[in-house]
Amino acid sequence: MTADHASLIVQGEDRVGLVAAITSVLTAHDANIVSLDQYSDDPAGGAFFQRTVFRLDNLKAALPALEKDLQKNLEKRFNLRFTLRDLSVPRRMAIFASKSDHCLLDLLWRQRRGELPVTIPMVISNHPDTAEDVRAFGVPFFHVPSSGPDKSAAEAEHLRLLQGNVDFIVLARYMQILSGEFIEKVGVPIINIHHSFLPAFIGAGPYNKAKERGVKLVGATAHYVTEELDQGPIIEQDVVRVTHADTITELQRRGADVERVVLARAVKWHSEDRVIRNGNHTIVFA
Amino acid sequence: MTADHASLIVQGEDRVGLVAAITSVLTAHDANIVSLDQYSDDPAGGAFFQRTVFRLDNLKAALPALEKDLQKNLEKRFNLRFTLRDLSVPRRMAIFASKSDHCLLDLLWRQRRGELPVTIPMVISNHPDTAEDVRAFGVPFFHVPSSGPDKSAAEAEHLRLLQGNVDFIVLARYMQILSGEFIEKVGVPIINIHHSFLPAFIGAGPYNKAKERGVKLVGATAHYVTEELDQGPIIEQDVVRVTHADTITELQRRGADVERVVLARAVKWHSEDRVIRNGNHTIVFA
Amino acid sequence: MTADHASLIVQGEDRVGLVAAITSVLTAHDANIVSLDQYSDDPAGGAFFQRTVFRLDNLKAALPALEKDLQKNLEKRFNLRFTLRDLSVPRRMAIFASKSDHCLLDLLWRQRRGELPVTIPMVISNHPDTAEDVRAFGVPFFHVPSSGPDKSAAEAEHLRLLQGNVDFIVLARYMQILSGEFIEKVGVPIINIHHSFLPAFIGAGPYNKAKERGVKLVGATAHYVTEELDQGPIIEQDVVRVTHADTITELQRRGADVERVVLARAVKWHSEDRVIRNGNHTIVFA
Amino acid sequence: MTADHASLIVQGEDRVGLVAAITSVLTAHDANIVSLDQYSDDPAGGAFFQRTVFRLDNLKAALPALEKDLQKNLEKRFNLRFTLRDLSVPRRMAIFASKSDHCLLDLLWRQRRGELPVTIPMVISNHPDTAEDVRAFGVPFFHVPSSGPDKSAAEAEHLRLLQGNVDFIVLARYMQILSGEFIEKVGVPIINIHHSFLPAFIGAGPYNKAKERGVKLVGATAHYVTEELDQGPIIEQDVVRVTHADTITELQRRGADVERVVLARAVKWHSEDRVIRNGNHTIVFA
Repeated sequence: MTADHASLIVQGEDRVGLVAAITSVLTAHDANIVSLDQYSDDPAGGAFFQRTVFRLDNLKAALPALEKDLQKNLEKRFNLRFTLRDLSVPRRMAIFASKSDHCLLDLLWRQRRGELPVTIPMVISNHPDTAEDVRAFGVPFFHVPSSGPDKSAAEAEHLRLLQGNVDFIVLARYMQILSGEFIEKVGVPIINIHHSFLPAFIGAGPYNKAKERGVKLVGATAHYVTEELDQGPIIEQDVVRVTHADTITELQRRGADVERVVLARAVKWHSEDRVIRNGNHTIVFA
Repeated sequence: MTADHASLIVQGEDRVGLVAAITSVLTAHDANIVSLDQYSDDPAGGAFFQRTVFRLDNLKAALPALEKDLQKNLEKRFNLRFTLRDLSVPRRMAIFASKSDHCLLDLLWRQRRGELPVTIPMVISNHPDTAEDVRAFGVPFFHVPSSGPDKSAAEAEHLRLLQGNVDFIVLARYMQILSGEFIEKVGVPIINIHHSFLPAFIGAGPYNKAKERGVKLVGATAHYVTEELDQGPIIEQDVVRVTHADTITELQRRGADVERVVLARAVKWHSEDRVIRNGNHTIVFA
Repeated sequence: MTADHASLIVQGEDRVGLVAAITSVLTAHDANIVSLDQYSDDPAGGAFFQRTVFRLDNLKAALPALEKDLQKNLEKRFNLRFTLRDLSVPRRMAIFASKSDHCLLDLLWRQRRGELPVTIPMVISNHPDTAEDVRAFGVPFFHVPSSGPDKSAAEAEHLRLLQGNVDFIVLARYMQILSGEFIEKVGVPIINIHHSFLPAFIGAGPYNKAKERGVKLVGATAHYVTEELDQGPIIEQDVVRVTHADTITELQRRGADVERVVLARAVKWHSEDRVIRNGNHTIVFA
Repeated sequence: MTADHASLIVQGEDRVGLVAAITSVLTAHDANIVSLDQYSDDPAGGAFFQRTVFRLDNLKAALPALEKDLQKNLEKRFNLRFTLRDLSVPRRMAIFASKSDHCLLDLLWRQRRGELPVTIPMVISNHPDTAEDVRAFGVPFFHVPSSGPDKSAAEAEHLRLLQGNVDFIVLARYMQILSGEFIEKVGVPIINIHHSFLPAFIGAGPYNKAKERGVKLVGATAHYVTEELDQGPIIEQDVVRVTHADTITELQRRGADVERVVLARAVKWHSEDRVIRNGNHTIVFA
C-alpha cells in the first residue's frame, strides 16, 4: 500500500509562499500529493510545520534528485529544515517492558495484524515473565535485570543491544526510570505511556493518588521521554469514567484499557511521521 | 479577527500539481496561508477538495484581481470549481423553531457571545412560545402557524420572509417537514438536527423508538436537508450514554444536551466554510 | 411527578442487617421503594451509605411518624445518621457569577425548563453585566462589587442576602475566592466549577497552563468548596479533545461547553440528594 | 477475592416490601450485603429486579438452607423468581470465532489476566487460522468447517462439543448465522458482537454501509442472540469518531477497537450476573 509513497516533513520560520514553494518542487518531480497538513503557530511570523505524503513512480530511484531540489529550494532559499522518508521502509521499534503485559501484547499483536508500519527487532525486559509470549510473535526477547539503584551496567547492556538496530523505543509500562545519560547516548526518540492524565499524578502510583483524590475519570498519557520525569512533550491522552465504588484494582483495570489504546495511537502516529516535536509541545497531524 | 481573511474552496478532478497551482496563485498575490486542508477521495483519479484560509492586506480591493487569476489558472487550466469568500462578511442565518427552546436559545446565545460568524436576521416559528426570548436577543421573530396538511400558504409566507435575506437556514428542532418544492425554491442550504444517531430511528419519535429497542446510547445528527426525510448528507453526530433506568423523558433530556452541541458544531463549521457537500456525503475540515 | 416522594439518606458504620433494617421500617409504613442505592467502602467494617427514594401516600402527614421510627430503629439501634426529605419541596439555590454567562444562563434555562428540582431565589454577581439576562427569567439579581483584597464588606452583604433564604450556593464561574470565615458562616453547601480536570492546573489561568503544557484534552471539575482552594470533594468531571492548533481562546470556548454540562450534572445530582460527602470524597448515586 | 461471595438475582411483580423481604432473609442467615442494585420499570405495578451480592462464612455449607428460606419467603409469599449462585465457581464460556482474531485474543488475554470470572473450555472456529494462538493459552481449539447452506452437520458437531460443558457462548466475530433450532437446543445464553451501532446497519457489511451513508461515528453492539438476526436484547454499545477521510479499511480498524472493549464489558457483566433479560431489553447493573 505504501509502495512508492514518501513523507516530507518541513519546518522553519513562517512566511508567504512556503506551501507553494514546497508543493511546486513536488509537482516539478511529478509527485502526486496524497495528503497535506500544515500548521503555523502564529500567522504573524511564527513557526511553520508541514507534513506531505506523496506518491512518486520509482520512488527509490527518484528520491536523490528530489532531495537535492528540496535542499536548493527549501533550505537555501527559505532556511527551512526538512526530512524526506520512503514510507515503504518500516521504522524499527524496540519495546521495553516489565511485568505488565497489556501494552506489550497489544503492540505486538497490532504489528502482526499490519496496523503499525514498524518492525520489532527486540523486546527488552527487566523481568522474564513475558518471554514466551513475546517469542511466540517471532520477536527476540532479552532479559536485562535491573539491579538496584546503579543502573549503569543494565543501561550499558541496553545500549549494546539497541545501537544501530532501532529507530525508536517504546516503554510499554516499563517500570524503571531511564537516566539522562542513557537518553542522550541512545539517540533515538523514546515514547512512554504514563498511567494518568498528565500533569495530574506525576510519578509513581498514579491510580492510588487518583483514588485518594476521588477523581471521576482516570486517564493515560503517551509522551516523549526527556530527562525530567513525566514532563516530556505529550503525544496523546485519553480518559475513562470511574466511580466512588471502583477500588484501586478496578481503576488499574479500567485504566489499562485506556493505556493500551493511547499508546497504540501514539506509536502509530509516530511511525507514520505524524508527530513533530516543537520544544515541549507536539504537532500531531492525525 | 477575520479582517483581511478569506476562504478559498476548490474542488474538481484530482491530478498532479493542484496544490502547487492553487498556492502559487495565492503567493503571486502575496496572500499568507493561515490554514490549508485538502482531501482526495481516491489518490488515483478521484475527486479533489481543498479549503484554504489566507490573509491578504486590503483584501476587499485585492479580491477581484485574485479571482480573475484563479479563474484563469484553476478553472481554465485544470477545470476546477472554486468559491472565494471574504470572511469578514458573516453569513446570514435564519432559524426555524417550534416549541422546544434548547437548540434555538443555544444558537442565539452562541451568536451573541461571538462563537458563530453569522448574523441572525430572523427566527420563524409555527408556535408563538419563544417570541419573547428571541426578541430579547434583538432578533426579529415571525410566527407562521402551520395549518394542517396543506403547507403551501405557510411555505409561501416563509419564502416571502426569507428570499434575498438569508444565506442558510437552520431547523432548530422545527417539527414540520419541508416540501421538496420549498427546498428547491428557497435555494439556500438547510441544516437540520435530528434527535437520533442516523440512520437509526429515522422519522418521528426517535426517543420512543430508542427506549423500545433498549439501546445504551442515544444520539443526534446534524445534516443537510434534502427532499428525502432524514437522508441528507450528515455533517456531525454525537451520542450520550443512557441506561435501562432512563425513562423516555430522561432520554429526551440527555439527548437535548447532545442535540444542541451537535447542531452548534455543524452551524459553526458550515458558516466557516469547513463543510463541502459531495453527493450525499460531506467533507468536514474541522 | 415528585408528589408524595421522599428521599432517605443513611450513613454510618457498616454491619450485617442495615439494608433490611432500613427497608423494614419503610415497609412497615407502607412506603413503596422507587430506587435504592447503597455502598460500603470496605465490606469488612467500612462506612455504609444508602440512598432510598420512596413513595408514600399523604407523605406530608406520614413523615413525622416515619421519622420517629427511623430514629428509634436506625439511630438508636445501629448508630446510623439519616436525613429524610420531602422531594416535592425544591431546594433553594443561589447562584454567584462574574462576567462569564455560560454556566449562569445554562442553569437558568435548565431550571425554567424543569430539569432541575430547585428554585433560584437570587443571583449575586460582582459585575452588573448579566443583570438584564437574569431578571428576564424572573430571578432577582444583586450586584455586590468586590472591592480590593478586603472582602469583609462584600461577604457581610452576601451573608445578609443569603442567610435563611437558600439551601445551597453554586459558583457559576464566580472569579472571587471565598474566605474560610464566609464558608463557615454561610453554613450551606457551596458547589464550584473549576475550569480544568483537577488536580491538574489548580488555581488561576488553567487554560493558559493547559496550552503551556500541551495537553490533548481540557476538562472541568465540579466540587464542593472548602477552605483550601480547588481541593474540595469532587462531584463530577469531564473532558473534551483539543489539538495543537487550538489557541487559548479556542480552549476556553471548547472548555466552556464542558464546564456548563459538568456543573449542570453536579447541581442536578446535589439537588436530588444523590451526592453524599465522605471526608474529601463523594459518593454519587447517579 | 470471591470466596464466600454469592449473587442473588430476584425478579417478579413489584409491590411494597420486596427489598425488605429479600434482605431480611439474608440478614437472618447472617449474610453481609456487599452490593445491592434494584430497579422497577414502573413504580405503579411494574416489574421488579434486584441483584444482591453478599458474603457469608462457609458459603457452600450455608447455601442450601438459605435457598430453602428464599423459596419460602420469596417464591411462595411474593411469587418472585430468584437465582442464587456461588461466585467462587466461574462460569464456563465457549468462544466461537472465524478468521478475525481481535475479539478472540482480547477475551483470552483478559481471562488469563484475571479480569473475567470465567473458564474457557473451548474455542470453536470454522477456520483453522487462530488454532496456534488459542492453544498457546492452554485452551482447546476445535475446527468445525461450515460447509455450504446446510448447517445441520456443523451444528450437530457444535452441540456434541458444547452440551454439558459450557454455561454461555460468545460469538467473537463469528461470521456464520446460527439456526433457531441450534439456539433452542444448545439452551445457554449466546452473546454476539455486531460491528455497528444497532439498530443502524443490521446484517452483513456494516462498515461498508457506514461509509456509504457517510456517518461520523462507527460503533459496536453486544447483544444476546435470538432467532431474529441482530434483533436480540442489547447488553452494551459504544462508538468511535471517524471522518470523511477514513477508508472502509480504516473504519474496520477503528471499529475493531470498539468491538473488543464492548464485547469484553458485556462478557464481564454477564459472567458477574449483572445482566438481567426482560423481554427484548436488558437490565444492566454495571
